[in-house]
Amino acid sequence: MAYNLLKGKKGIIFGALDENSIAWKTAQHCKAEGAEIVLTNAPIALRMGAINKLAEEIGAPVIPADVTSDEDIENLFIKSKEHFGGGVDFVLHSIGMSINVRKGIHYTENNYDFTHKGLDISAISLHRVLKIALKHDAINEWGSVVALTYIAAQRIFPDYNDMADGKAMLESIARNFGYHYGVKKNVRINTISQSPTRTTAGSGIKGFNGFIDYAEKMSPLGNATADACADYIVSLFSDLTKMVTMQNLFHDGGFSSTGVTQAVIEQMEKE
Amino acid sequence: MAYNLLKGKKGIIFGALDENSIAWKTAQHCKAEGAEIVLTNAPIALRMGAINKLAEEIGAPVIPADVTSDEDIENLFIKSKEHFGGGVDFVLHSIGMSINVRKGIHYTENNYDFTHKGLDISAISLHRVLKIALKHDAINEWGSVVALTYIAAQRIFPDYNDMADGKAMLESIARNFGYHYGVKKNVRINTISQSPTRTTAGSGIKGFNGFIDYAEKMSPLGNATADACADYIVSLFSDLTKMVTMQNLFHDGGFSSTGVTQAVIEQMEKE
Amino acid sequence: MAYNLLKGKKGIIFGALDENSIAWKTAQHCKAEGAEIVLTNAPIALRMGAINKLAEEIGAPVIPADVTSDEDIENLFIKSKEHFGGGVDFVLHSIGMSINVRKGIHYTENNYDFTHKGLDISAISLHRVLKIALKHDAINEWGSVVALTYIAAQRIFPDYNDMADGKAMLESIARNFGYHYGVKKNVRINTISQSPTRTTAGSGIKGFNGFIDYAEKMSPLGNATADACADYIVSLFSDLTKMVTMQNLFHDGGFSSTGVTQAVIEQMEKE
Amino acid sequence: MAYNLLKGKKGIIFGALDENSIAWKTAQHCKAEGAEIVLTNAPIALRMGAINKLAEEIGAPVIPADVTSDEDIENLFIKSKEHFGGGVDFVLHSIGMSINVRKGIHYTENNYDFTHKGLDISAISLHRVLKIALKHDAINEWGSVVALTYIAAQRIFPDYNDMADGKAMLESIARNFGYHYGVKKNVRINTISQSPTRTTAGSGIKGFNGFIDYAEKMSPLGNATADACADYIVSLFSDLTKMVTMQNLFHDGGFSSTGVTQAVIEQMEKE
Repeated sequence: MAYNLLKGKKGIIFGALDENSIAWKTAQHCKAEGAEIVLTNAPIALRMGAINKLAEEIGAPVIPADVTSDEDIENLFIKSKEHFGGGVDFVLHSIGMSINVRKGIHYTENNYDFTHKGLDISAISLHRVLKIALKHDAINEWGSVVALTYIAAQRIFPDYNDMADGKAMLESIARNFGYHYGVKKNVRINTISQSPTRTTAGSGIKGFNGFIDYAEKMSPLGNATADACADYIVSLFSDLTKMVTMQNLFHDGGFSSTGVTQAVIEQMEKE
Repeated sequence: MAYNLLKGKKGIIFGALDENSIAWKTAQHCKAEGAEIVLTNAPIALRMGAINKLAEEIGAPVIPADVTSDEDIENLFIKSKEHFGGGVDFVLHSIGMSINVRKGIHYTENNYDFTHKGLDISAISLHRVLKIALKHDAINEWGSVVALTYIAAQRIFPDYNDMADGKAMLESIARNFGYHYGVKKNVRINTISQSPTRTTAGSGIKGFNGFIDYAEKMSPLGNATADACADYIVSLFSDLTKMVTMQNLFHDGGFSSTGVTQAVIEQMEKE
Repeated sequence: MAYNLLKGKKGIIFGALDENSIAWKTAQHCKAEGAEIVLTNAPIALRMGAINKLAEEIGAPVIPADVTSDEDIENLFIKSKEHFGGGVDFVLHSIGMSINVRKGIHYTENNYDFTHKGLDISAISLHRVLKIALKHDAINEWGSVVALTYIAAQRIFPDYNDMADGKAMLESIARNFGYHYGVKKNVRINTISQSPTRTTAGSGIKGFNGFIDYAEKMSPLGNATADACADYIVSLFSDLTKMVTMQNLFHDGGFSSTGVTQAVIEQMEKE
Repeated sequence: MAYNLLKGKKGIIFGALDENSIAWKTAQHCKAEGAEIVLTNAPIALRMGAINKLAEEIGAPVIPADVTSDEDIENLFIKSKEHFGGGVDFVLHSIGMSINVRKGIHYTENNYDFTHKGLDISAISLHRVLKIALKHDAINEWGSVVALTYIAAQRIFPDYNDMADGKAMLESIARNFGYHYGVKKNVRINTISQSPTRTTAGSGIKGFNGFIDYAEKMSPLGNATADACADYIVSLFSDLTKMVTMQNLFHDGGFSSTGVTQAVIEQMEKE
């Protein structure tokens, strides 16, 4: 389906690693809806991933940017403005990484150098992107920013480790910057709290299959796929949602409002 | 703008009283997006309002139905199925009324006959609509139901009176029925918590102007209009939001995530 | 343990059916902490239960009152004021009943006469108690009111049926009346959202054992007992919590903030 | 009033700067309730403050500790265990600082070196304290940890700046560590979200008087004082609240559940 929902809109998409990525699907859906895209990712992710394939497919330039570097983000916005001949209408932040998780360090033994690096990549990166966008007036009036998050920001999922704290901070940044960018430029900023998704990034988390199966059983509509998430992001980038801001929006088949399901109760009775 | 977002979809819209109503705007927007509509309202509201004008404009039949009557709702779904030659894809519930408010009875002195009647109209009506829709299998797979609510369900607004309790119950019904309808038919059910809106219904609430001005000052994007709300509802009826269910979604320019604004602080300093 | 935490305080306790009841334990704990009590329950519950045993044990009069009757509640407060020679300092509302549950009617097929009766007993009863207390100025300045609720008001538990909607309304009434009683008399009103508890009332709910086992596995500290709940209620009746009001307080061993536990993940892997 | 509620309990209190501090009052109240205390603060705060006066008054040793130093926290727990001849029963974390605030840097222009330092002091410090306590098994079974926070973690208060993001992270750490410490040792961890309070620390925040006046008008019981907060903390350290964990508890006179008050509406009408 294509509705031309984003016709004439321009946007930057962070975090398209490979074709399993939500950011990858989002780029495709945005393109199909008539948007023009700039793709960006960390230099190392660019080397590991297959982003050039996507870039070709959707006719988008790739501008490398390390989200922990002011200079890189500055360059990204300057180049994007040149490319588009003006500001952007939407930004997708689909970035998260925990070094404590990668190193297999238990939450109760976290190394704080790793914690800080994780926060820099996973949470402060959103602040940095917005700060520099604002400085360069790089997001158009009534633009829309979406960052991806997870319900671990509200409830504990033991294996999610310090990513949970990073996501809590990310959601707070979205709210806080959403106020300031809203007051100044009517730019809206929201987070989408997505079902656990079998992306290349997600699969690094220990016990991830347990997560997914449980979440599937606990979601009346089942887990939301990356494709469905891309659709939802399109709706948030469109003009249909101009007054939605500073919200954390669950896209999870109902998981967040479910205390228990019949399927889980039946599973609990097994011995 | 029209994107054909709802092309081929059919829906029932409750509560279009006059051209200020959110339901009225929603009917127009849905039609513009390619949907076919059945309009319904209480017989008394039909007499008071101007619904026939809308009906003509969008080519929709009007089927009167008192939401407190199983029989009427049953008739509505049977007639709608006949009209459409099948089930519907979306339903808008935009219905609320407090007799205690109308009679000017203070919250702390509420008359419980009025409370029950208010609940019947404002909250149980959603359950009734869903119960009878399910019984007649009148909502298609992956259909979408939206009910309008207000943040008084979470935080007190003194003049909102017992409507607050009714809205809390309405949101609970959306969650609970959302589970069952989701598991059975993949139908999603959400509430939209809308900015205070100058509708004919809203204007009956004492101190409503105070509400609106305060909300305007407390919302980084300002209060959301009825038109913007209709846009948002369209996005929730579309296929872009299939996995969003059992949520209460704030459509309020950021009011719900705002503790205070500069504008309010300045106002507080006036003597 | 006894600390004299409630020395000199007087209170009314609704809902002590038998020695499994949270209200029963609360009456005992309040007495042990130095309070004087009036016990009340519906006439039918008084006949079924063993309340006279408790009344003797703690030296409390029993004043029957049907919470759906203004007259009965009026009589209760008048008699209590006579008995105590003045107003009360605390009230426990531990009352809930769903006729739809009792009759085994599925949520999606609820009978609305039963719904209304259930709301009258489970939710509006709190409003009625507060309305009449306020009218008779029967709760002292800085008094404390607690009503018991369940997390089904926020997330669905399928077998909890329409009690969920009733609890959502109950919590809303606590917030709304909490504002008015706070502004007028500095009376605080809170709800405690308690772990599923093996009370005589609770055991009527279908699938209740499934509930309890799952909740136990999902609570880092395990399910909270009725005794622990009584302790918590004592703290909320004491002068240590004077500024806590209009809150829903989870007393659940951490269940409400837990997305999944290791114990549940292991259970999910069983076939 | 003194009830011996904490008789025999031992605890560590972080953050008693001067007699306006919540931590200072808490130390006094805990002592009055029969507890033994170890006081700690950052070396620089010890020099600026008057902690020795408090130490004498309550007969507590002062052990300096920089919460950003593993070594210092390790030393604190080792010394405390020696002093008490065993583990502690409670810990109060009342620590927060934003260098961006101190330097007068607007939120949208935050310096990230300062952000990281602020997080280290305000949020990660709680993780560090718990990590090292767990390593040394320094908190007794059924012990209680409380950290102070502010509602800016949920809703924006523009002048609160990046402290909001730090508090969001702090609350997340409380939940996440609360799970692990709960499962391992039945230790409970909660945050108290306190009214704005005229402490020496709080007064550094720009527009703080605006905050306080607005909060006062928006709180049905008025703003909670530091003394009332100390009382509430005592209740959370006592055995009456053993099953409350991983919660964010508002101690705010009802502010958090209030959408608007009559007093604010009247103020809005002034010109």
